[in-house]
Amino acid sequence: MSGPQTPEPALRIQGDAPTGARDEDAADGIQHSHRMLSFSDALLSIIATVMILPVTHTEISPEQFDKSIQKLLATRIAVYLMTFLIVTVAWAAHTRLFQVVGKIDDTLALLNLACMMTITFLPFTFSLMVTFPEVPLGIFLFCMCVITIGAVQALIVVYAFHFPHLLNPQIESSAHRALYRQHILGIVLRGPALCFVAAGFSLFFYPLSYLLMAMVIFLPYVSKVSSWCKGRLVGPQEPPAHSMEFFTFDLHEPLSKERVEAFSDGVYAIVATLLILDICEDNVPDPRDVKEKFHGSLVAALSVYGPHFLAYFGSFATVGLLWFAHHSLFLHIRKATQSMGLLNTLSLAFVGGLPLAYQQTSAFARQPHDELESVRVSCAIIFLASIFQFAIWTTALLHEGETLQPSARFGGREHAFMFAKLALYPCASLLAFASTCFLSRFSTAIFHLMQIAVPFAFLLLRLLVRLGLALLCAMRGLTQPATQAEGDAHAPLLPAAC
Amino acid sequence: MSGPQTPEPALRIQGDAPTGARDEDAADGIQHSHRMLSFSDALLSIIATVMILPVTHTEISPEQFDKSIQKLLATRIAVYLMTFLIVTVAWAAHTRLFQVVGKIDDTLALLNLACMMTITFLPFTFSLMVTFPEVPLGIFLFCMCVITIGAVQALIVVYAFHFPHLLNPQIESSAHRALYRQHILGIVLRGPALCFVAAGFSLFFYPLSYLLMAMVIFLPYVSKVSSWCKGRLVGPQEPPAHSMEFFTFDLHEPLSKERVEAFSDGVYAIVATLLILDICEDNVPDPRDVKEKFHGSLVAALSVYGPHFLAYFGSFATVGLLWFAHHSLFLHIRKATQSMGLLNTLSLAFVGGLPLAYQQTSAFARQPHDELESVRVSCAIIFLASIFQFAIWTTALLHEGETLQPSARFGGREHAFMFAKLALYPCASLLAFASTCFLSRFSTAIFHLMQIAVPFAFLLLRLLVRLGLALLCAMRGLTQPATQAEGDAHAPLLPAAC
Repeated sequence: MSGPQTPEPALRIQGDAPTGARDEDAADGIQHSHRMLSFSDALLSIIATVMILPVTHTEISPEQFDKSIQKLLATRIAVYLMTFLIVTVAWAAHTRLFQVVGKIDDTLALLNLACMMTITFLPFTFSLMVTFPEVPLGIFLFCMCVITIGAVQALIVVYAFHFPHLLNPQIESSAHRALYRQHILGIVLRGPALCFVAAGFSLFFYPLSYLLMAMVIFLPYVSKVSSWCKGRLVGPQEPPAHSMEFFTFDLHEPLSKERVEAFSDGVYAIVATLLILDICEDNVPDPRDVKEKFHGSLVAALSVYGPHFLAYFGSFATVGLLWFAHHSLFLHIRKATQSMGLLNTLSLAFVGGLPLAYQQTSAFARQPHDELESVRVSCAIIFLASIFQFAIWTTALLHEGETLQPSARFGGREHAFMFAKLALYPCASLLAFASTCFLSRFSTAIFHLMQIAVPFAFLLLRLLVRLGLALLCAMRGLTQPATQAEGDAHAPLLPAAC
Repeated sequence: MSGPQTPEPALRIQGDAPTGARDEDAADGIQHSHRMLSFSDALLSIIATVMILPVTHTEISPEQFDKSIQKLLATRIAVYLMTFLIVTVAWAAHTRLFQVVGKIDDTLALLNLACMMTITFLPFTFSLMVTFPEVPLGIFLFCMCVITIGAVQALIVVYAFHFPHLLNPQIESSAHRALYRQHILGIVLRGPALCFVAAGFSLFFYPLSYLLMAMVIFLPYVSKVSSWCKGRLVGPQEPPAHSMEFFTFDLHEPLSKERVEAFSDGVYAIVATLLILDICEDNVPDPRDVKEKFHGSLVAALSVYGPHFLAYFGSFATVGLLWFAHHSLFLHIRKATQSMGLLNTLSLAFVGGLPLAYQQTSAFARQPHDELESVRVSCAIIFLASIFQFAIWTTALLHEGETLQPSARFGGREHAFMFAKLALYPCASLLAFASTCFLSRFSTAIFHLMQIAVPFAFLLLRLLVRLGLALLCAMRGLTQPATQAEGDAHAPLLPAAC
């Protein structure tokens, strides 16, 4: 959380009241929503990653690995990715809602808990829907969840507009409050309404239900694109007098940076500890087993689980360092937008896949012939998780004046360093992947080398970047010593100190 | 998180720099530690509750319930409680450390990740130690973990004192910085040193190892008590010139309120979702099973798991509402102390036991004769979790001028309401427990009634409190109408509005 780090008035989406007003507010039972929001973020991030568990716990023994297991695994991975995206959509809707509702009271806190409880049920109903695509019950339950969530959110909107001091001050003081209310209620209820129709159709023609449910996710973007096309064809319309900053579904719509951080922290924390959950539960050997099978030697009994421990350390280190890169990145971001949020979601979805990769690498000892494939899958997942982080950085650079701290912009002191930090994992995983192609015999060794080397690379990075820049300066100095000043102007990648 | 809610200069433990200095800091690679600390809190809260999983997953069928299973269950519960306390001790040490170190740079962030990784390994080594109490390896591994954690923390202290701008401004500007450093290093390294000796003794006389390890936890309190006794006997000594506010192990030592909230949020979030993790993983029926066993009826297949879903909703609602009470309580707390932290830990340890209680109540359908016992265990756990929350409130009231917001103090407008909020769960669980004694046949019905009634009671609480107070006023008005003003002065429980 970076509560004290977002003090610029322009970016105050949450509507923090000045300090002096706090005691009065508390006395009226009105509270700032920060803690409730981070609790919600923690819940949602756990729920988003929960469907990776059936994937990692799919038992694969070399003999049994036939088409049915392969199909099961593929289905479970698809379910995981879809659930992650669905929960993220719910999270985004929640974020949008509480950018409008700035403060809470007890009723809103309890309504929010009800909303959370329904959202935590989404993964199960979705998984049911996928396992039994032709049975109406799965579709029906899923739609019921969406409808309940929508209804509770609508209640929150109605309640907050009824007590306007709970609203974002920008909306509270607006003259078009009733219009805002109508607009927001329309958007909040659009999805549930479609799901209501879908639940009805599930009883006699279920393919239409799926089409309707897909529309829930894509509708805002379709309507956005169509209005953009219309604007292009007919000519730019005048924006309505009560143009909104919220619920526009625009890619530049601001997103609460605090909440992106809290949600990401939750995902990283749960993913980092997923493997230790398994280790703590299953890998303490049974005293009777130790006596009978290992002649009382605990060391021998534990060494059976050796690969699991290695995998755990590898997984924790990678997730930890990806968190570190994410943390460094968001330290330099002043304002988060919806497009950055989208890229962040994709990155997190792959981070959630890491336990899968490591479970595979921990299976090395048992199936040496699958080793190469496992290492490649791990490298690919790490690459994808880190490249989407890098994409957030590039997206931020496109509007750097608005989105980045001055020191991280082109030519800023931290720019080159930040660039190197975010490029480290994509480069390392790509390198490891490429070298497994040439030196397939040493693929495990290469992978473990990468795991050990990267943390030290992060420590040495500042030194390495300085050295690289000095080298670059020196080289340029040799080739064109006269145009030094001009060269600096053309190379915004280099910090001013160079 | 309540970042923007702790702005009073006297309570600024984390050493927030003024807003203007932020950009410069970021440019030097120095960062505020807020987000890193909440990430650490999330990790530690997950790790603290992880050992409840082996407890909840212990298979108990009515036939097999013999002494060996009972002993296994008791061991696992003991391991869970001890692990929870050990991780909380590690968390408290971490909190103390980062009250001294106010800002971080990349090196400190990476060192902290290393520290976290070692802490996440503690539950496993502890569980190993308990399962094989006579094998030196378990003790040895546990001690190694503690030594590593201590070494990393000492490194953090040395590093931070080497770059004093990373320190808490209060210490940074102190003339006795070197003394502080020595004092803190001594305390940080005391535990690991004892563990080092314990690891040595584990090879030839292990009972001594356990004694030494127990000392690690109790040493600060023993030394505190002995110095207090000495002070009583010899007379009060003059405090040394460099008297510290940190690392005193005094019960009134301030504790970062933000971190208590973040750690509690993590525990509540993971406990609330623990049951859904099981449901998502195991309770999606297999399509083949549905065809063969249930003649293709998904509803019949799901109804087998009915009690699980009921248990999930009950568990989520209870955890959610306990979180809500905690949230309301900490909203009115201005400053947290170590004694409040201790009570909070005890409350959280019982909250962590809730999934166990609900797994038991979800087993109703299978073993109707154990129903009464399960309901009573559930009631007892809920009672203990909520009564410790209530104890935090009473502790805060003892020093209300320092620890509470004015509105929550005796006579404040929110006092009676807060009192009722925190008393609701202890009363409800006690009532349910008592009624199972008289109406043992309806125990399940009573329990479910309590689950349904309590959320509505929270909603209606404000109304109920008003009504109760009005009633009280009216009654007093009838009995002694003349001494109304005097009566008010003697009844600080009543708000001024009455």
